[in-house]
Amino acid sequence: MKILFLILFCLPLEAATYLFEPLPTSVPIPADNPQTHDKIVLGSQLFFDPRISKNGQVSCTTCHSIAGSGENNLAYSTKPNGKHSLHTVPTVWNAAFLNRLFWYGSAGSLEEQAEGPLEEMGLGSLDEITKRVAAIPQYAATFATIFPGEPIKMANITKVIASYERTLITPNSPYDRFLRGDIHAISGDAVKGMAIFETIGCISCHSGPMLDGGSRFEKFPQFPGSPYDAKYHLNEDPGRFNETNQESDRGFWRVAPLRNIALTAPYFHNGSVTTLEEAVTVMAKTQLNRELTDVEVHELVSFLGSLTGEFGERKLPRLPDLPSLNDFPAVAP
Amino acid sequence: MKILFLILFCLPLEAATYLFEPLPTSVPIPADNPQTHDKIVLGSQLFFDPRISKNGQVSCTTCHSIAGSGENNLAYSTKPNGKHSLHTVPTVWNAAFLNRLFWYGSAGSLEEQAEGPLEEMGLGSLDEITKRVAAIPQYAATFATIFPGEPIKMANITKVIASYERTLITPNSPYDRFLRGDIHAISGDAVKGMAIFETIGCISCHSGPMLDGGSRFEKFPQFPGSPYDAKYHLNEDPGRFNETNQESDRGFWRVAPLRNIALTAPYFHNGSVTTLEEAVTVMAKTQLNRELTDVEVHELVSFLGSLTGEFGERKLPRLPDLPSLNDFPAVAP
Repeated sequence: MKILFLILFCLPLEAATYLFEPLPTSVPIPADNPQTHDKIVLGSQLFFDPRISKNGQVSCTTCHSIAGSGENNLAYSTKPNGKHSLHTVPTVWNAAFLNRLFWYGSAGSLEEQAEGPLEEMGLGSLDEITKRVAAIPQYAATFATIFPGEPIKMANITKVIASYERTLITPNSPYDRFLRGDIHAISGDAVKGMAIFETIGCISCHSGPMLDGGSRFEKFPQFPGSPYDAKYHLNEDPGRFNETNQESDRGFWRVAPLRNIALTAPYFHNGSVTTLEEAVTVMAKTQLNRELTDVEVHELVSFLGSLTGEFGERKLPRLPDLPSLNDFPAVAP
Repeated sequence: MKILFLILFCLPLEAATYLFEPLPTSVPIPADNPQTHDKIVLGSQLFFDPRISKNGQVSCTTCHSIAGSGENNLAYSTKPNGKHSLHTVPTVWNAAFLNRLFWYGSAGSLEEQAEGPLEEMGLGSLDEITKRVAAIPQYAATFATIFPGEPIKMANITKVIASYERTLITPNSPYDRFLRGDIHAISGDAVKGMAIFETIGCISCHSGPMLDGGSRFEKFPQFPGSPYDAKYHLNEDPGRFNETNQESDRGFWRVAPLRNIALTAPYFHNGSVTTLEEAVTVMAKTQLNRELTDVEVHELVSFLGSLTGEFGERKLPRLPDLPSLNDFPAVAP
């Protein structure tokens, strides 16, 4: 153990950055959407506002809980039409550090991602959403201040939502403090788990600050044929193939980021696994063709638990008033 | 106008208190549920926690929006089973000052009221709710600290929710500032509306600090037979009779409190009226048999707009972690 540990910390800087990396202290900001206080406030309001959903009762935070783990601890999200999504909800916490969003990796930025759920919130046409936003006078005024001369449009709605999301960071996890030199920040079991994570090869995909290999794509299951395939319905969804229609993408998925993973059960794209212990066991078998001992599972889960960051205190946004329902496009039950 | 205004302010204190009264500076606290910081924090967490609903997606704030007007600006609430409630959602803001809760006045305290929505959130049995709360370790620990030696039970769940609700006050409305002597706090139109409100008799029911006559019951419509009965389905629900089964209660309703009324469209128990202008017009006709001029309507609405208080900045509670879904009673889609 000690040897592994020493090796790890003796790696040259480039290699170390490739393997275990703390969360950067600042988020990447796209050149065409600089952060401003006004955008962040407006984005937080829209994030919490159910009036931009078909039935007036679903907001971004309904599924991406800001009071909680940034997702909903369910195997699906529910759309206003009562239908369920195919996949679990990925957490919004630290999503600002991801290069690909959605389980199929179909969005390349938070701005692009935000369109998907807004559409799913049931208004169908993006036009209908901009109409609802424009019908709320304070939103109309704030958009006019932030984007002078522009009509309210989806591209700007997603920009301010993304600006807010770039503030949803959970720094200073025990893991980050450990990587920065606080050797007592994580338990002995977690240190052992970290070494197992590296030596058996988890890290070959789950690397970098988000432990997602920079949002790379990988086959899952890599070793098909285990009883887990049927038990957890691992072959029923062809993954990224659904997005690209390319045979080479069949069964490929975005590598899941592991930050705050202890809080985001159930696991996998279909939420079929309810505990982190089982998720680790299944991943070792299907991706590395390896059967873990109970001790190894325990140590890996201890390590993963050290990836839980600090959520900090958050303000509840104050939603703008809706002066008259007569000026507001009707919601449908 | 000026004469009315002077008369109003020359009334002896007892009479003046009976008519127009500012919001008290402190809320009434029941002897068996003193306010504590821990209760308020725990109550705020439960208020925002969707895990105590059947489908894991509905919390108190879903319908009683704390980011917004304390209700949902809809004609109904939606239960996890997809069914709609019969009535609009009364706002939770300042509910601490009410003597009767629900449209039928069926609850006499916030503690008693809280049981209703919790049941409607779909878990059916109150037992099931306490099980879910107890399965979240931080809740279990905090309840044990606040109520030492007691098991987690509905009576204590509703106590802490009520303690949080007693902090949801919107003080310093222009109306309150006006009553306290700031004569320029409300517009000239609002002053005129206030005088009309008194002289035509609105205040005979809508009196006191909550403008609800101390949560009294009144017949609605008082003067049946107007076209509004059919147009807005005013006779389809026998009101408090549903609660008591007493003929003398047929058609009686709790007098609606008017604080923040400009923000809580749609109006009436069934949400059939979408604007405050129309609500005022209908009430004058059905309750006072009076047809208002457009100017009177405008002035009354100006007055009612002055009842919007200050919502202040609110913290988003941080929900406790749910370490393992295996230890948590399953949610049903």
